[in-house]
Amino acid sequence: MPKISQKGNQMPESPIRKLVPYAEIAKKKGHKVYHLNIGQPDIKTPEVALNAVKNADIKVLEYSHSAGFDSYREKLSNYYKKQNLPINKEDIIITTGGSEALLFALGSTMDTNDEIIIPEPFYANYNGFAVASGVNVVPVISSIESGFALPPIEDFEKLITPKTKAILICNPGNPTGYLYSQDEINQLAAIVKKHDLFLIADEVYREFTYDGYKHHSIMNVEGLENNAIMIDSVSKRFSMCGARIGCIVSKNKEVMATAMKFAQARLSPPTYAQIASEAALETPQSYFDEVIIEYKERRDILVNELNKIEGVMVAVPKGAFYCIAKLPVDDANDFAQWLLEKYDLNGETVMVAPASGFYSSPKVGLDEVRIAYVLKKEDLIKSVQILKEALNTYNK
Amino acid sequence: MPKISQKGNQMPESPIRKLVPYAEIAKKKGHKVYHLNIGQPDIKTPEVALNAVKNADIKVLEYSHSAGFDSYREKLSNYYKKQNLPINKEDIIITTGGSEALLFALGSTMDTNDEIIIPEPFYANYNGFAVASGVNVVPVISSIESGFALPPIEDFEKLITPKTKAILICNPGNPTGYLYSQDEINQLAAIVKKHDLFLIADEVYREFTYDGYKHHSIMNVEGLENNAIMIDSVSKRFSMCGARIGCIVSKNKEVMATAMKFAQARLSPPTYAQIASEAALETPQSYFDEVIIEYKERRDILVNELNKIEGVMVAVPKGAFYCIAKLPVDDANDFAQWLLEKYDLNGETVMVAPASGFYSSPKVGLDEVRIAYVLKKEDLIKSVQILKEALNTYNK
Repeated sequence: MPKISQKGNQMPESPIRKLVPYAEIAKKKGHKVYHLNIGQPDIKTPEVALNAVKNADIKVLEYSHSAGFDSYREKLSNYYKKQNLPINKEDIIITTGGSEALLFALGSTMDTNDEIIIPEPFYANYNGFAVASGVNVVPVISSIESGFALPPIEDFEKLITPKTKAILICNPGNPTGYLYSQDEINQLAAIVKKHDLFLIADEVYREFTYDGYKHHSIMNVEGLENNAIMIDSVSKRFSMCGARIGCIVSKNKEVMATAMKFAQARLSPPTYAQIASEAALETPQSYFDEVIIEYKERRDILVNELNKIEGVMVAVPKGAFYCIAKLPVDDANDFAQWLLEKYDLNGETVMVAPASGFYSSPKVGLDEVRIAYVLKKEDLIKSVQILKEALNTYNK
Repeated sequence: MPKISQKGNQMPESPIRKLVPYAEIAKKKGHKVYHLNIGQPDIKTPEVALNAVKNADIKVLEYSHSAGFDSYREKLSNYYKKQNLPINKEDIIITTGGSEALLFALGSTMDTNDEIIIPEPFYANYNGFAVASGVNVVPVISSIESGFALPPIEDFEKLITPKTKAILICNPGNPTGYLYSQDEINQLAAIVKKHDLFLIADEVYREFTYDGYKHHSIMNVEGLENNAIMIDSVSKRFSMCGARIGCIVSKNKEVMATAMKFAQARLSPPTYAQIASEAALETPQSYFDEVIIEYKERRDILVNELNKIEGVMVAVPKGAFYCIAKLPVDDANDFAQWLLEKYDLNGETVMVAPASGFYSSPKVGLDEVRIAYVLKKEDLIKSVQILKEALNTYNK
């Protein structure tokens, strides 16, 4: 019998997936499970996007251009310019989700066994994309005590080797909700320029910032044009996760010409989803204003309620819709499984994502969980109540 | 300035793409260009698929399961069973086009510098997927003189090394239109079993066979369950190239569990396109019957007309909708460029795909072109007429 690849063996399984069978057990018992573990928002997709698909007059569902619809790239460029990002149509290739954009970025800039430095905790699938691309992740630990701020830039510099090709950040961060300051972005810009590296920024949560904090894009750093590669996606912005539309953005013409070769090999991004994404750019500002108010309220409730629990520490997120909470448990993996397998409060329980899966370093973040505030407020309150009672029971 | 990857440098550019600027020149001169170079059919997408999307009641465009809609996988399994392919739901993972299915297959079975043997000429993007996966293509030449039949199995066996992990075939073939016989499939099955290799078959043109020839799937070879990986797609079957939906199919549970990890990393295949693809399975048989008649007529016209030109040799395709034609020219790349840049017959010209891009071996197939018969009959006749006159002029 032929064997699977070492790469396949190394592909990580998400820690959430490991919990899925236990969630099934909870559901079989008739327990209601509040999903604090997921990144799928309940926010409605803008009608203008859904209607564009309904009304599209298609006879032959054809390939689009490999770089995506010309009209969409043009409008997307205008959208970025309104956000004060100097991005032209030719700086954009439309991809199948932010996922594919990241794969193109890695493929265009890194070879087998090259190294990419990523502050951890980070979006767990970065590990998967790195393995798929044959690339090694070199983590820099950021800590809950500092609210997951950028680690000292010397920590990055110490890790740079001849194999290092890029630094990758997620801003605002999944799973931390941390928003990098202009000063932090400048520090990163300086170090990648000094060492001739790429700075790849996953900015898919750009619009989700709270408390008056402003997002600082790597695309706005002067002199960084040849180093900066931005990853973007419509998934969260328009609550269109199922569209699978994102883009890779760079002013580096060599990078874009190379990414284009990867794009051509897979022919085109999905046509229906591009129709929806192009139309979504017409979404009125009021939609975003309401969404931000909603997420901010959810965040405040979540953080306030979590802070009431003894022994719980939360890093207050300034953006995105996740937070990391440190729990008074030894192993959040065991606790998360126990919540589903063994526990209920009046027939209800919660599912959380153990944070260890967001660290590349072993045995780090073992007492942390990621909580997504994509549920409505009543459910969030109820969820934290369950968590509190569960911790009491668990620790007895 | 940071450098792009060697992988990026090695990513091949399609020979068709190189001609695009010359097609622009022809169009700027006001010349009409008949596109014999493309694989985008003009056949209408089944209405049942288009209507399903129009009528979908979506409020939040959510991620689907990473393996695809459960309902779609179930119906797809039934569809295969009707085609006498013993494929169950759990043998299927829905992908973003056949492209992603092939990437998952390579990633799940091969590591950096592993080797995959492919009879050439082959679908040019296999080269791109191999480079992206860090895998080396080892070609076996099949020739127009034998109609692109399977090369002697000893030719494969000679090339097998400890690095060899798989043999990849496209059946029916793009760009050859060749349909492997049961005996040829059996020979391939025997050799992969003997050497513990995977046999990956791209069967996206399965339904397009002519003259009573039957398609023989690798999924029907007894005892090959652990070696066989099938690649499929809705693109050509339902003229839904822009959907970007395919699947990877295998009975090898280890392969499927591994492919699933790749699938989870990229979250899910596109939701709208899955709605269309699931509904497309309700397409009435009459649709396919008409399409096959149409393609067969086109093929007959194309082959007949080409055969009338002195010095042209055609391998009569038994399936798919491409053929390779050998032309009385030294370099079909130059000729294809000349057709666009310098030639016209009463303001019209043709664009063909030089076949050298479908060979991995250098300097092979230099006098061959791939012609797709996706245009209507009048246009095909006109196109070959132009080709004939052009060859006369070119060879003077």
